[in-house]
Amino acid sequence: MKKRNVDVAVIGAGSAGMRAFRAASAWTDNVVLIEGGDYGTTCARVGCMPSKLLIAAAEAAHAVRQAPQFGINSGRVDIDGAAVMDRVRRERDRFVGFVVDTVKGLPESQRIRGRARFLDNHRLQIDDHTIVNAKRIVIATGSAPSFPKSFAELGDRLVVNDDIFEWLTLPKSVAVFGPGAIGLELGQALSRLGVEVLMLGLGGSTGPLTDPKVIDSADVAFSQDFYFDADAKVHKIERVEDGVYIEYLGRNGRNRVSVVDYVIAATGRTPNIAGLGIENTSLLLDEKGIPKFNPETLRVGQSHVFIAGDVTDDRALLHEAADEGQIAGDNAGRYPDVQPGLRRSALGIVFSDPQIALVGSRYNELTHRDLAVGEVSFADQGRSRVMLKNKGLLRIYADRSDGRFLGAEMIGPRAEHLGHLLAWAHQSNMTVDEMLEMPFYHPVIEEGIRTALRDARSQLRQRVRRAA
Amino acid sequence: MKKRNVDVAVIGAGSAGMRAFRAASAWTDNVVLIEGGDYGTTCARVGCMPSKLLIAAAEAAHAVRQAPQFGINSGRVDIDGAAVMDRVRRERDRFVGFVVDTVKGLPESQRIRGRARFLDNHRLQIDDHTIVNAKRIVIATGSAPSFPKSFAELGDRLVVNDDIFEWLTLPKSVAVFGPGAIGLELGQALSRLGVEVLMLGLGGSTGPLTDPKVIDSADVAFSQDFYFDADAKVHKIERVEDGVYIEYLGRNGRNRVSVVDYVIAATGRTPNIAGLGIENTSLLLDEKGIPKFNPETLRVGQSHVFIAGDVTDDRALLHEAADEGQIAGDNAGRYPDVQPGLRRSALGIVFSDPQIALVGSRYNELTHRDLAVGEVSFADQGRSRVMLKNKGLLRIYADRSDGRFLGAEMIGPRAEHLGHLLAWAHQSNMTVDEMLEMPFYHPVIEEGIRTALRDARSQLRQRVRRAA
Repeated sequence: MKKRNVDVAVIGAGSAGMRAFRAASAWTDNVVLIEGGDYGTTCARVGCMPSKLLIAAAEAAHAVRQAPQFGINSGRVDIDGAAVMDRVRRERDRFVGFVVDTVKGLPESQRIRGRARFLDNHRLQIDDHTIVNAKRIVIATGSAPSFPKSFAELGDRLVVNDDIFEWLTLPKSVAVFGPGAIGLELGQALSRLGVEVLMLGLGGSTGPLTDPKVIDSADVAFSQDFYFDADAKVHKIERVEDGVYIEYLGRNGRNRVSVVDYVIAATGRTPNIAGLGIENTSLLLDEKGIPKFNPETLRVGQSHVFIAGDVTDDRALLHEAADEGQIAGDNAGRYPDVQPGLRRSALGIVFSDPQIALVGSRYNELTHRDLAVGEVSFADQGRSRVMLKNKGLLRIYADRSDGRFLGAEMIGPRAEHLGHLLAWAHQSNMTVDEMLEMPFYHPVIEEGIRTALRDARSQLRQRVRRAA
Repeated sequence: MKKRNVDVAVIGAGSAGMRAFRAASAWTDNVVLIEGGDYGTTCARVGCMPSKLLIAAAEAAHAVRQAPQFGINSGRVDIDGAAVMDRVRRERDRFVGFVVDTVKGLPESQRIRGRARFLDNHRLQIDDHTIVNAKRIVIATGSAPSFPKSFAELGDRLVVNDDIFEWLTLPKSVAVFGPGAIGLELGQALSRLGVEVLMLGLGGSTGPLTDPKVIDSADVAFSQDFYFDADAKVHKIERVEDGVYIEYLGRNGRNRVSVVDYVIAATGRTPNIAGLGIENTSLLLDEKGIPKFNPETLRVGQSHVFIAGDVTDDRALLHEAADEGQIAGDNAGRYPDVQPGLRRSALGIVFSDPQIALVGSRYNELTHRDLAVGEVSFADQGRSRVMLKNKGLLRIYADRSDGRFLGAEMIGPRAEHLGHLLAWAHQSNMTVDEMLEMPFYHPVIEEGIRTALRDARSQLRQRVRRAA
């Protein structure tokens, strides 16, 4: 068994761990990066990048189908599943290659391969070959897909998002369980690529949305594309000869039966904590078994341990993982002078069509406050209609006491871009009036934001009148 | 001859005039709106809206052609020119209808039909039926397409942008003179709709761009789509039996000959000043014959006359016309207590593909300053590549002395959205460091902005190091 004494050990070479390694390295050269799996990040391998590649193909198919409405005709749409998946994998491999090259570019002496396990507060055992004694430790072990135990009986007909990108071609039909961000993106993309899609959720949630009116708008939009029931009652799921048999209560109140090739479990992700030997440390855990940490410093309690990325089970997004890695690594490096780092205004996006975006505080976090809610439907928004993307709803929340913009939820066209504009305004602490002073070109989808802001302003003025 | 005494007369019922009318009406009911042509705005009739409709069809055709690269095949693209133009006209008429309804919704007593002509500083004669004696006057007469006199000889083979949207189907070939915003948008759209396009300019300017590196990138991108020479030498243009004969020096240095169905003159627009009888007033004119005005108040000199919209020959954009109408109308109403109004950070967009955007100060307005210039090519930008929209260049200009963001020019994907984000940052007076603290999701085209900002920051830091 080899022994190493280091200033900082980073467990996990994903997006958060890589960033933590670099940030800690600004303070000391004695940093090691420990990785038990293949190099390459969740984002590049099975997350943001390959899903966007699949979505790009789906959008191409949708564009061909929609073209006749503009006067552009062509023959029957023919989805070459093998070609679609070939581009997805080829480009995915290219992105993964860059990430792997970056890790491999680090000095070999600073990289340890193997699974890390805490022996005590400072000592980590890596597989059966090394014991690392670390002054400070960053946990950045990421997350893995999780699903109800009963799904395991579906055997090779059960698929998680990680598997889809290895497909050599497209199946005929799938049932997607879980209309969260991953389920919506993959399910809708497959539907547009000619796969028959059944999407079922429990409890009615749709992506990360919390505003009932926006959820309703999303429900209408997705239901036009594929069978969508965010609050389904499933009576039976069973592996059968040629796929999976599903019995469920239909939206029309009658029982329905579907047989699909695969079940895609998009039912959530679980932090990679089990097996880390956290129980051998004195770290305090929350009720989900995750070390309790300060989101400004990423420090676990008052300890020498930091945590970053999806393993925190909080803001599981690439850009947040990178920020957390930066803060955790920086603090592990500068320890004991731990400092709060930069946390940005919340921005969540689902790359469905219409897209979903959430900015700042969510509606369900704001319901106790006295809110002005400005609203716009995209059904008749000028430019959206020109582009035949006129679906969806944006709702903007402002504080009635001072007119400050608090957050927004939307489903609609180009929400990824509108989301950035709103998130920058949110982080800049703008009021509705200040946002209305900003430039809006014509004709653009951003004019929808202006309509919603004006709606909010009219409510804010009523307040002023009442008060006067 | 009828006589009317009014507080405010607004000449022109377009975007600027309508807004001026409403703003003045907040101060007095004795306002009249005078219009000599048909109701309906330049934007809705022949500008922003119908051009975006044509572009939407062009993008649909482009998407069908590009789909095989994603694995999506269909038959030969068949452009149904009649159907394309039918949707353009139908939707255009709908937008125009809304505008016309708005004007007609104003009380008849406040509307005068006919061409206005100054008799002196306060009196306007409308055709031969009314003399309006106005305490204050807003000139909002708009602009009209202009072209070199020699073009007139082309007769019915000469087309301006106003004419295109009346086409019942698409021609086989056109030569577009003038690669400004209008020429680029219409020319490229027609090219993607199967029309053979020859685009020729004089002097090398491309849209509103002034940064030579961005112009070069635009040149490469457009040249892949159609014959494009922004600095052409044209030897001969002549009406012939079956179209227009054009002899010109090719980009390869050899003379070329083309015969096209139509010449589209996108060679500029001229303010509608002639015929207004400005010479009967004591208003001071600039060298182009336009009354000299203050862009903050829209007041002409120290007079009781205000001017707004395209007739100013400055910022000929819908949103600027609306702002100018607001300010001019408000000041005409509140006169003599004239106040500066809200002018926003400059934002210019060309809806070509790739799109062009200019924000804040233009490069050619900044060359005398000590600049940090951050740059990103979209050729390898992650998300742009995923979507096969990986073309173009963004350049961001910052003040070396304080890191403040001064302006940007770009050609690239989704520039209309990136332009808004940058324009809001510009109007908020942000520094490069502050912009880098804002949220950037992943994977998005906005990450290209971040790359350019980081590039600028590294130059700003060099400056700090040199100074230290």
